[in-house]
Amino acid sequence: MIEQFQRLPGIGPKTAQRLALHILKRPETEVQALAQALLDAKQQIGQCSICFHLSAEPVCEICRAPSRDPATICVVADSRDVIALEKTREYRGHYHVLGGVISPMDGVGPDQLAIKPLLRRVAQQSIAEVILAISPTVEGETTTLYVGHLLKSFTRVTRIAFGLPVGGDLEYADEVTLARALEGRRELH
Amino acid sequence: MIEQFQRLPGIGPKTAQRLALHILKRPETEVQALAQALLDAKQQIGQCSICFHLSAEPVCEICRAPSRDPATICVVADSRDVIALEKTREYRGHYHVLGGVISPMDGVGPDQLAIKPLLRRVAQQSIAEVILAISPTVEGETTTLYVGHLLKSFTRVTRIAFGLPVGGDLEYADEVTLARALEGRRELH
Repeated sequence: MIEQFQRLPGIGPKTAQRLALHILKRPETEVQALAQALLDAKQQIGQCSICFHLSAEPVCEICRAPSRDPATICVVADSRDVIALEKTREYRGHYHVLGGVISPMDGVGPDQLAIKPLLRRVAQQSIAEVILAISPTVEGETTTLYVGHLLKSFTRVTRIAFGLPVGGDLEYADEVTLARALEGRRELH
Repeated sequence: MIEQFQRLPGIGPKTAQRLALHILKRPETEVQALAQALLDAKQQIGQCSICFHLSAEPVCEICRAPSRDPATICVVADSRDVIALEKTREYRGHYHVLGGVISPMDGVGPDQLAIKPLLRRVAQQSIAEVILAISPTVEGETTTLYVGHLLKSFTRVTRIAFGLPVGGDLEYADEVTLARALEGRRELH
């Protein structure tokens, strides 16, 4: 059991041991409930066939919601990013989860990501805007430029803004972020 | 000496004691050189009469440089921000240092800042753009909106971009920053 726990992200030998000893102290019904929850989630949660977000149904809640705008697609690397963006309560369009970023070092090329299904969505439906919301790391930038290049002939392609984090201090911003914040300046309304 | 050192920012009793003991071990000429450097800097470094940046001359190097564009003024809270922006090597205009941000809690109102001299500069010279580069904290936002409102009838007023820091991860961005990054999205070129 300790070995199995240690395979989980962020759990080292000591935490694994603590978790294991905790499990041994609990009543059997409680342990069964935990084991069953793991199996149920694994069996029931798959991917949305449209946007590849995690979903218990063939089509996820966001893709099914009539209140959301299907003509805007926000492209993200991971389902975690959908959850982060949903928390802002600012976005009312659809998503597309690539399933990672292009990273030749880790053997991830464009074919390992859900880029072709995205192209199909954009080519077949009437899409007004694709927003690329991929983290501005080196791999993320590569992915943004690659996907953006492919989509540009079909629709309007935008990307989320670089700049100072809200509440952040100019003095502590790195030079590249500061340069981008200056470059991306906007009219004050 | 320990008491004096302790008055400096970021120096507690232990560091103050360590610095003081170090000074006592050094030759007298070295201590005199340090003392003189402090006095010289204090006596010689004042403010630029145009932009209020630190300067040994009545007009600072940036305001005097013929290679820089005097029609663009970047407004910052502090001389530290000028230094941070200069490190990006992206900006070729002039600056205006307000000397702080509006903060009623600390008794800092608009009259305590170099806002009137800024208005005078913009009214008297031909200024194409004023870029507000004030940290997006609560006080910074108040200052940006106050100064922007006053300047808008004279010239184009922009502000630096909010968004994700370069190299940052979407998942770790706070919700307000993420919402602003989404709102501030730009065409992909």
